[in-house]
Amino acid sequence: MIVVLKKGTTKEQAEQLSLKLQDKYSVTVNSWYGELSTVLGLLGDTHKVDIDSVLAWDIVDNVKRVQEPYKKVNRAFHTENTIITLENGLKIGDGSLNIIAGPCSVEGEEQIIEIAKKVKQSGATMLRGGAFKPRTSPYAFQGLHADGIDLLLKAKAETGLPIVTEIMSAEHIDLFENVDIIQVGARNMQNFELLKRLGKLNKPILLKRGLANTIEETLMSAEYIMSEGNEQVILCERGIRTYETYTRNTLDLSAVAIFKKLSHLPVIVDPSHAAGIPWLIEPLSVASLGVGVDGLIIEVHNDPPHALSDGAQSITPEKFDATAKRIFAAKAALDAALK
Amino acid sequence: MIVVLKKGTTKEQAEQLSLKLQDKYSVTVNSWYGELSTVLGLLGDTHKVDIDSVLAWDIVDNVKRVQEPYKKVNRAFHTENTIITLENGLKIGDGSLNIIAGPCSVEGEEQIIEIAKKVKQSGATMLRGGAFKPRTSPYAFQGLHADGIDLLLKAKAETGLPIVTEIMSAEHIDLFENVDIIQVGARNMQNFELLKRLGKLNKPILLKRGLANTIEETLMSAEYIMSEGNEQVILCERGIRTYETYTRNTLDLSAVAIFKKLSHLPVIVDPSHAAGIPWLIEPLSVASLGVGVDGLIIEVHNDPPHALSDGAQSITPEKFDATAKRIFAAKAALDAALK
Amino acid sequence: MIVVLKKGTTKEQAEQLSLKLQDKYSVTVNSWYGELSTVLGLLGDTHKVDIDSVLAWDIVDNVKRVQEPYKKVNRAFHTENTIITLENGLKIGDGSLNIIAGPCSVEGEEQIIEIAKKVKQSGATMLRGGAFKPRTSPYAFQGLHADGIDLLLKAKAETGLPIVTEIMSAEHIDLFENVDIIQVGARNMQNFELLKRLGKLNKPILLKRGLANTIEETLMSAEYIMSEGNEQVILCERGIRTYETYTRNTLDLSAVAIFKKLSHLPVIVDPSHAAGIPWLIEPLSVASLGVGVDGLIIEVHNDPPHALSDGAQSITPEKFDATAKRIFAAKAALDAALK
Amino acid sequence: MIVVLKKGTTKEQAEQLSLKLQDKYSVTVNSWYGELSTVLGLLGDTHKVDIDSVLAWDIVDNVKRVQEPYKKVNRAFHTENTIITLENGLKIGDGSLNIIAGPCSVEGEEQIIEIAKKVKQSGATMLRGGAFKPRTSPYAFQGLHADGIDLLLKAKAETGLPIVTEIMSAEHIDLFENVDIIQVGARNMQNFELLKRLGKLNKPILLKRGLANTIEETLMSAEYIMSEGNEQVILCERGIRTYETYTRNTLDLSAVAIFKKLSHLPVIVDPSHAAGIPWLIEPLSVASLGVGVDGLIIEVHNDPPHALSDGAQSITPEKFDATAKRIFAAKAALDAALK
Repeated sequence: MIVVLKKGTTKEQAEQLSLKLQDKYSVTVNSWYGELSTVLGLLGDTHKVDIDSVLAWDIVDNVKRVQEPYKKVNRAFHTENTIITLENGLKIGDGSLNIIAGPCSVEGEEQIIEIAKKVKQSGATMLRGGAFKPRTSPYAFQGLHADGIDLLLKAKAETGLPIVTEIMSAEHIDLFENVDIIQVGARNMQNFELLKRLGKLNKPILLKRGLANTIEETLMSAEYIMSEGNEQVILCERGIRTYETYTRNTLDLSAVAIFKKLSHLPVIVDPSHAAGIPWLIEPLSVASLGVGVDGLIIEVHNDPPHALSDGAQSITPEKFDATAKRIFAAKAALDAALK
Repeated sequence: MIVVLKKGTTKEQAEQLSLKLQDKYSVTVNSWYGELSTVLGLLGDTHKVDIDSVLAWDIVDNVKRVQEPYKKVNRAFHTENTIITLENGLKIGDGSLNIIAGPCSVEGEEQIIEIAKKVKQSGATMLRGGAFKPRTSPYAFQGLHADGIDLLLKAKAETGLPIVTEIMSAEHIDLFENVDIIQVGARNMQNFELLKRLGKLNKPILLKRGLANTIEETLMSAEYIMSEGNEQVILCERGIRTYETYTRNTLDLSAVAIFKKLSHLPVIVDPSHAAGIPWLIEPLSVASLGVGVDGLIIEVHNDPPHALSDGAQSITPEKFDATAKRIFAAKAALDAALK
Repeated sequence: MIVVLKKGTTKEQAEQLSLKLQDKYSVTVNSWYGELSTVLGLLGDTHKVDIDSVLAWDIVDNVKRVQEPYKKVNRAFHTENTIITLENGLKIGDGSLNIIAGPCSVEGEEQIIEIAKKVKQSGATMLRGGAFKPRTSPYAFQGLHADGIDLLLKAKAETGLPIVTEIMSAEHIDLFENVDIIQVGARNMQNFELLKRLGKLNKPILLKRGLANTIEETLMSAEYIMSEGNEQVILCERGIRTYETYTRNTLDLSAVAIFKKLSHLPVIVDPSHAAGIPWLIEPLSVASLGVGVDGLIIEVHNDPPHALSDGAQSITPEKFDATAKRIFAAKAALDAALK
Repeated sequence: MIVVLKKGTTKEQAEQLSLKLQDKYSVTVNSWYGELSTVLGLLGDTHKVDIDSVLAWDIVDNVKRVQEPYKKVNRAFHTENTIITLENGLKIGDGSLNIIAGPCSVEGEEQIIEIAKKVKQSGATMLRGGAFKPRTSPYAFQGLHADGIDLLLKAKAETGLPIVTEIMSAEHIDLFENVDIIQVGARNMQNFELLKRLGKLNKPILLKRGLANTIEETLMSAEYIMSEGNEQVILCERGIRTYETYTRNTLDLSAVAIFKKLSHLPVIVDPSHAAGIPWLIEPLSVASLGVGVDGLIIEVHNDPPHALSDGAQSITPEKFDATAKRIFAAKAALDAALK
């Protein structure tokens, strides 16, 4: 970490700050006195240094990090890819492509079981479905809650597909006991109380990037979970908020490649929420293969117009079947061509 | 609400959709058959119509709202300003300017009481202080939790200043019983489970705009609280995330004027977090007066370099004293000039 | 186009506006009187209707377009793909993948000829090189200007590669007579005077999306060129400005698929500028194949550290050779798998 | 400037780079060898160092500027405010408030003279009016060009008001000979060829911030003009592009205070374009006073619905009269209260 001091700072002031920093953070501080400014260099493990509190010194002009502020997540300290293995043996992060499919919301037993069977036939390896739904409007359907999870478990029993569903509050954590992967939605990516609680579980967490969160903030949220002991984190890029309004969000595929480079965690893409446009699901999925994605999460509903939430971005099981076939074909072709 | 159908839609298809919409949402639907497209107009109370589920119909090209999707918050249905009165008689939203001041985090009894006394002397009408702190890094100071709230209550007992502090999880709600105003931070603005719980209280809620949330989404989050029965909501503009990096966030003062126009709720501004730069607090505060702000929330720390969080954007009590004097002078001058 | 009138508008006022609109824009206007609002629907060719001037009527609440505001560019009126054929027979937009490679700036004869030969050997089909360089700082290297173009023409003579180079002012247009494709940079995407002048040429124009321009604005800039008669426009996605700072810009691959859907024009991607990170060039290029890109423009410099501009995002000819091989292999594999 | 080298860089490599940097940019380089990384510090005048070309060295991890990259614009080298004096003696930047008013486009003699007279009566000190209009659509009114400037000059002759009008291409520069202030629009803020040409004039330039340009980029564009010799630059904040869609742009008032701190140039605000909403003009203008603005540029049209461009954001002369009165009253009150 580089601390640039203001013009006019005396050597004594610089030394006083150096001592404080050494003392407070157990780092070594090198000073370098220049003509226009004095610079302090902090050596050692600086990931706990609080930039704001350094900046609060009157003599400090600015502070620049050299090292990343995350550690558990950091590929520099954990070079091999993390591979997550589910109860049924399914692996995520081993180079294969997992497709997680299912409706935005679980709406009823028949619906979820029918969709589960169909997406399994089309090659999906996991079932998604919302039981707790974060909706912008309090008047929109909020999900079936505990009943929704029960229905997902029935669909799992019926098909063998592991299930992924979103948690919205730490208070509900017990309901998720038999869920295979717990999803943290974009709006809760910095719900730190929730992250800490999930960090105490021994269960994979699918962490969606917040709609206005940076790559680094996303990794810091993964660090929250991992720092509590749970090392099974899957990152998910689902589009970020930009000025462009044609698509609901702007899918940031660079982030996928960067997540894979900076961290050792599996990364999946959500092409349904990213664009909010059904016909873009296939091209964005194929594009995701190019940046090394480990999985896709795709909304499938047997009757999109009657979906109780997010019907607009869902595709039918028939459309999903054709889409999945092409995505898997593209995956196999690219793997062979680029091996 | 206007529903534009795709080219080639038949009259029968349009009528089928009209019937469904009338049935599902108890609205009246007018159809208008044009050369290039057919348009349906939904009349009546459309704030419960789920746009996504309308868009999911194959024949629908796009949907445009004409009415706002919020009701309780809407000035159209509640023309006078909401004025919130605290236990000690203090009013928010009555045309006066309230300054809420205090440290980012409560760090100890001496600290908080000293700051409380000083900011009161300088004209602050409420004390802020964080007990639960949302920090990007799990390694940063997370607040004193219950102890922090106890210390705030001591400072309140000592000075008579009502207290404002942030809640991060519904699980902690009992700890906030004697807090005067509960703050929902920007990162939790769409933590809908938390909003619903706060909606069941009879206590003012200070709702901060999320760092990438629109004006409408902010009003919808206020609607979440109000739709559960709690009508005491204060909105807070604290800067939004943009591409500009010189300031931490970009303060959106237009939003303040728009919040006041679209809703009847009091609106305050947080110039400390908006910019993250202490010298900008005064000019941004004075600017906020121009758009009709009801209050300001300003970070004050007796020893910014040793603050355990966000010292960089705090000012000292001495600096606050000078700043508050100038802000109140500007308020009085503008009120007189523009009455 | 849908014009929503304010509550309280009388039927007479609505009719007066209808007549004006019919008269001014030769459209048919249907009126629909609802309980809460009156809505006018404009039928016919509305792409010339100026939304701002409709909004300026006191009685107008808001205006929503139903049709796109562009015509020449619009696939609805020109269903087949535009294929551009260069002097040497090279085709752009015919389903093949063109790679345009070369240095950010032309720096000298030896440099540009050496790079041209090498990138040709690696499969590049065109040579790029900047003669006029838009640089944020007036103190940075601004390009060799006319001499730069001469050197590109020498490299073309030597290798047969068509050349692509950027124009920064209509005043220089004569210098571009023998250039194969004239590039309009992101910063000039809305330099409308320049666009109109280029519209009078009979030469392909490579139009880069502005760093904060929407998909629709980009299409409107293409419309500027086409409305003057030049129908040879190639669109280029090169990343947009967002809050994310890890990459220089955020590559918006959804935009590529959307450009191809809404317009009939060829679309290329610039992975070098999009990310500003050399190791991202390959994954982003492969990803671009997934959204149907017609070409890539990649910065190659024989000596990146000594490049006079943008060395940071360039790769060496050796690295380019390996990258191009993998991109072409991926293209062939995907074409076979997804045909 | 701080150059951080990659882990594993040898001392020899670091020294080689140091020598190159010293040689190329005439700076002194201090090296500091740490455990995890080596850091070079560049001392002296680093504003000409090209970051990209430093980053292109394989051993360089990242580069951080300590000094600003602009010099002529920099308040550090020119501490007093620049005050611009027009032909008629009017001063900009001397602490007074100038209001520039007039229509978006000049449409005819009667129109512009009538508006000029009225806005003068209401206290406007300059007349604005577009002769060359940057319009997103090629089908929208593009301005009266040379005739528009002639009409502005007639209005100037009639009223004595200095005139401000926008230039869109260096080719038109001769037409602006008698214009008092030449405006560079947001879309041309990085039209560097134009900036360089304007830098050779002896005439004030009103430089609008680009809709997605940073504070630093705006200052660099001013530096382009000043580095050619023209020191009469006025900066203009007119709103930036963000994800918020309620307003056309998001007015960044922090930028005004920061422009005034980092540079010595006068700064004005354009509340009409910033929001695109007439009723926001007054509150945003008063707010601008709080951040120390030197002037405002406000669109006034005698007949907004019939304006040929941007009628939606214009106000009538009557509305302007009331607005200007309140703005001047607020200015006087704040000056007295905060002196």
